[in-house]
Amino acid sequence: MRPPAFGLAFRPSTRIASSRVILRCPSHVPRRYVSSQKPQQPYRSVAQLLQWKPQEEIEDVVVNGFVRSVRGLKAHRFVSLGDGSSLAPLQAVVETDRAEGLAVGAAVRLTGSWVSSPGAAQSHELHVKKVDILGPSDAKTFPLQKKYQTPEYLRTMPHLRPRTPMNAVLLRLRSDAIASLTQFFANQSFVQTHPPIITSSDCEGAGEVFTVTPAAAGEPGKDGPEDFFRSQKYLTVSTQLHLEALAQSVGNVWTLSPVFRAEQSDTSRHLSEFYMLEAEMSFVDSLGPVMDLAENMLRHLSTDLYKSATVGDLLARSRHSGSDLLPAGEVARRWEGLAERDWPRITYTEAIKLLQQKADTFKHKPTWGVGLQSEHEKYIADVVGEGRKPVFVTNYPKDIKAFYMLPTQIPGSGSEGSSSEATVDCFDLLVPDLCEIAGGSMREYRLDPLLDIMKRQGIIKSTSDPDSENGSGSGLDWYVELRRWGCPPHGGFGLGFDRLLSYLSGVQTVRDIVSFPRWYRRCDC
Amino acid sequence: MRPPAFGLAFRPSTRIASSRVILRCPSHVPRRYVSSQKPQQPYRSVAQLLQWKPQEEIEDVVVNGFVRSVRGLKAHRFVSLGDGSSLAPLQAVVETDRAEGLAVGAAVRLTGSWVSSPGAAQSHELHVKKVDILGPSDAKTFPLQKKYQTPEYLRTMPHLRPRTPMNAVLLRLRSDAIASLTQFFANQSFVQTHPPIITSSDCEGAGEVFTVTPAAAGEPGKDGPEDFFRSQKYLTVSTQLHLEALAQSVGNVWTLSPVFRAEQSDTSRHLSEFYMLEAEMSFVDSLGPVMDLAENMLRHLSTDLYKSATVGDLLARSRHSGSDLLPAGEVARRWEGLAERDWPRITYTEAIKLLQQKADTFKHKPTWGVGLQSEHEKYIADVVGEGRKPVFVTNYPKDIKAFYMLPTQIPGSGSEGSSSEATVDCFDLLVPDLCEIAGGSMREYRLDPLLDIMKRQGIIKSTSDPDSENGSGSGLDWYVELRRWGCPPHGGFGLGFDRLLSYLSGVQTVRDIVSFPRWYRRCDC
Repeated sequence: MRPPAFGLAFRPSTRIASSRVILRCPSHVPRRYVSSQKPQQPYRSVAQLLQWKPQEEIEDVVVNGFVRSVRGLKAHRFVSLGDGSSLAPLQAVVETDRAEGLAVGAAVRLTGSWVSSPGAAQSHELHVKKVDILGPSDAKTFPLQKKYQTPEYLRTMPHLRPRTPMNAVLLRLRSDAIASLTQFFANQSFVQTHPPIITSSDCEGAGEVFTVTPAAAGEPGKDGPEDFFRSQKYLTVSTQLHLEALAQSVGNVWTLSPVFRAEQSDTSRHLSEFYMLEAEMSFVDSLGPVMDLAENMLRHLSTDLYKSATVGDLLARSRHSGSDLLPAGEVARRWEGLAERDWPRITYTEAIKLLQQKADTFKHKPTWGVGLQSEHEKYIADVVGEGRKPVFVTNYPKDIKAFYMLPTQIPGSGSEGSSSEATVDCFDLLVPDLCEIAGGSMREYRLDPLLDIMKRQGIIKSTSDPDSENGSGSGLDWYVELRRWGCPPHGGFGLGFDRLLSYLSGVQTVRDIVSFPRWYRRCDC
Repeated sequence: MRPPAFGLAFRPSTRIASSRVILRCPSHVPRRYVSSQKPQQPYRSVAQLLQWKPQEEIEDVVVNGFVRSVRGLKAHRFVSLGDGSSLAPLQAVVETDRAEGLAVGAAVRLTGSWVSSPGAAQSHELHVKKVDILGPSDAKTFPLQKKYQTPEYLRTMPHLRPRTPMNAVLLRLRSDAIASLTQFFANQSFVQTHPPIITSSDCEGAGEVFTVTPAAAGEPGKDGPEDFFRSQKYLTVSTQLHLEALAQSVGNVWTLSPVFRAEQSDTSRHLSEFYMLEAEMSFVDSLGPVMDLAENMLRHLSTDLYKSATVGDLLARSRHSGSDLLPAGEVARRWEGLAERDWPRITYTEAIKLLQQKADTFKHKPTWGVGLQSEHEKYIADVVGEGRKPVFVTNYPKDIKAFYMLPTQIPGSGSEGSSSEATVDCFDLLVPDLCEIAGGSMREYRLDPLLDIMKRQGIIKSTSDPDSENGSGSGLDWYVELRRWGCPPHGGFGLGFDRLLSYLSGVQTVRDIVSFPRWYRRCDC
C-alpha cells in the first residue's frame, strides 16, 4: 500500500515546477530548459509520522533526520531519530548488517515500513529496509551526547546547540509566535514596518550604544572612518522615534526589529542584541487603548498557541532537565495567565502605597519619586496580579521617565502637574518572576512642551535650534519637526521579544532563548 | 440611524478591557484598578468609509486623518482627508465658520453625516458637524504641498516623506508582503528564525563590512573599543551561514533580516542597510527543490496580493506622477509574470551560447568564465523570460562564485568538474528590467572539500587549523565544524526584499522603497 499524499514534498506545485517546464520561446532558444535533476523523493517529518497510526503496514516510508541514540547489539539496532519537528524521536529498527554509519549525530535517510510497535513508547515504528548516511558523524567526538548537559556548556557552542531537542522546540516557539503576532496585527490593520537599524541618535539618551563604521578606509586622504555617513552613526536602541514618524503616515504601525545596547551587564535578562516588538497607535486620546492593544496582543498569542504541537512539546519537557527549565506546571500557569481577561491596572502612586504597607519586608524602601526595585515589582505581580495575570503599573513620576512621554493631564484643572508629584502617561507591564516585560506611553505630541522638556533635560541647547548636523546637537531635529505639521495624539509600547519567549518557555535566561546570543565579552560564531 | 459595527474600535474585546476590570484581590488591595479614561470613541478609516455606500444618511460618523487640501472660499470648504489607508482621499464638506485650523497637513478629527454625494468623484461625502484640530499645521511652511514633488526633494526629508499618499501605499505593500510571506512559510512548516546581526565574519569575503564598537570606553586602562566582544565584530552581510546551522536543527528555515554593506556605490539598486529574505532547506538532494521554493514563494505572494486593496491603490497611481514611477500597465505585467507557472531554467553555459549568437549587440563580449553583465541579464530576461516570467540561470563557473557553493556533480562520472569548465550548483533569478533579484545554491556539505576550497581561496591558512580566535583566521571555524557531525545536503537562497518591493511597485530606486534609506554619504534621521 502506498502512503497517502501529505506533507511538503507532496505539494503538486512543487513537483510540477521541477518536472515539467514548457516554453513558448523564440526559435533560436532551445524549447525546454529543465533542471536535469529528478524531483526530490517525498518524505515525512518525524512529527507527521508520530501522528500517523495506520492499521496496516505501510511500505516505502522515507524519513530524514539525525541519529539521537543507538541501542541494541545483536541482530537489531534501535535508532532514535529526530528532525526538530517534535520533541519525541521516532523509533527505527535496523538490522545490524545495515547499521553501518548509524552513529549518534549522523544525518541519515531511512526507508522502510511503518508498522505498529510492540513497545509501549510509541504506537508505530519504522522497520528499516534501506539506510542512507547523508552526513556522517564521528560519534566519539560529537559534543552533544544523549545526556543532560548544562546550559553553560551548551552556550560554548551556539552553532551546535540548536540541535538539542529542546532547542529545536524553542526555535519553533519563536517561529510560531512571530506568525501568530503577524496575523494579530494584520487582522487589526496595523502596518508592519522596517524602521532603520543604523541611526543618528540614542533614543533613550542612555549613551550605551554601539557605533557603526566601515571596516575599509574611505577615499585616501579624504575620508575618516566617520565620513562614510558624514557623521557618527549608531545601532538603534529602540525604533520608537522612527515608528512615530511612520504612524503619521498610516495610523497604526508595528515592527519586530533587532535593537542593540552596549551595556556591560552580565545578567540573565540582558543581551547586547535582541528583538523588540514595538507598536505605535495614532489618533489615540489616552493610554487605555495602548494598554488594551498590549493586552489583546498577548492574549491572542497565548490562546492561539497554547493548544499547538509546539507548546505541547514545551510542556512535555523532561522532568530531569535540570534547574535551567521551570517545571511544566508553572509554565502552563504563565500561558493561562496571559489568556485571562481584565488584567489589573494600577497607578505607580497606588503601587507605592501598597508597597509602603509592607515596607519592612523590602530591602529598598518604597519611596514616591524613585523607580520600583525588582523586589517591589515582584510583590506587585504576586499580589495585584495574583501571581498569574500580568499587571499594568501606570503614571510614573515624570522625573524618572524618558523625555518623550506625555505629562498626565488632570481633567478639568488645565494643569499638567508641574509640581514635584507630576506624572507621565506611561505604563510598565509586569509579569510574575520576570517582572517588566513591556513598557509604553503616550508621547508628547505638542511642539513647545517637547522643546521645553528637551532643553530642560539638556538634550538640546536652545528651543529655537534643535538642529544636529554639526554634531553638537541631539540628532533629533527631525523628531521635533514631526510636531510642526499635523501631529495627532499618539502612543505605543515596546516589548522585549526574547524576554517574552523566555517567560513563555520557562527558560531561565535570555541567553538560552536566542540561538547566537551576544552580551558583554561574548559573541561566539 | 447608528452605523453598523465594524473596524478596530468596535472589537468587543478592546472595549471590554478598558471599561470593565473586576478583580478578586486580597482585601488590602483596592478592588478595582481601572484606567479612569473613557474608552476611545469608535472611528472608521478613510478606506472603510469609501467602501461604505448606505442609501440613507448616516449620522455621527467620526473619521481621523490629515488634511491634504482645502478648496472653496464661500459658505463651504471642501476638504480632502487622507489617513494612509487608501490612495484616494475622503471628501468632507465643512461650513466655513467651522473651518478654522483646517490647514494642509493638519491632523484632524471630523464628525458628521455620511451622505451620498452629488459630485462624481466619490459616491458619498462627509457633511461635517464638528471639527477637532488634534495637531495643527502651518500650511505656509508645510513642505509637502499637494503638487508633484521630485523624489530627490522628498528624499531630503525621510521623516515627512511617508505622509505622501503614494508612500503610504508603499508602506502597506511592505506590510502586506511580509504577512503573505509569513503565511506562505508557515503553511510549508518552515521555521522563521532570527539569526544574529553582529557577527564575527564577512560571509561573502568581500570585505565591505561595517564594524561595531561600543561608543563608551570600557574599563579604564583595560578595555579598548574592540574588547567589548573580545575581538573585532561586524554587521552581518548575509545570514546564510547561521541559517545553515539552524537548518541542522529544524530542517527548513527562513528569515527576513536586515543586512549591511559598506559599499561606496551610488546606484538605484544599492543601499548600505537593507532587508534580505533568506531560506535554507535541509535534506535536499539537488537545486531543483530550492528553485521550486523561490518560485512558489513569489507566485504565492503575487496571487495572494494582486487583488488586494493595496495593489489596487498601487495600480491606481496618478498618470501624472513623473518618471520616478513606472506606468501602471507595466507594473501589472510584473505581478502577472510572477503569477505564471513554469519559469524557465537555463544553465549559465546555455545562456552564454545564446548571448554569443548576438555577440555584436553587446558592449561586453559574452565569455564563458566571466560574470554576466547587466546587458546580458536583460537580454536573457527579455528573450528567455519573454519579458514577463522570471528566469533561473543555473550552474555558474566555480571560479566566479562563493566558496560555500557545491560543485556540480556530473552523474555517473564521479567527477566534480575539476577542469577549468567546472561549475557550481547555484542560480541567479533574473526579472525583466531589474535583473538579479535572488540568488541561491546548494552548499558544500562535506568537510574535506570545504576545507580544501577555503584553503585554496586563502580564507584559511591550513586545513587542519581553521580556528580564528587569535584574529588571524577566518572566523569561520564554527561553520566548518557544522560539517564534522551529521551535515546533510542542503541549499537555499537569498532575495533582496527591498529590491523585490521596488520591482513590484515600479518605484525606480530602492532609496524610495525604504522609509529611511542609508547609502554612501546619506543617513538622514
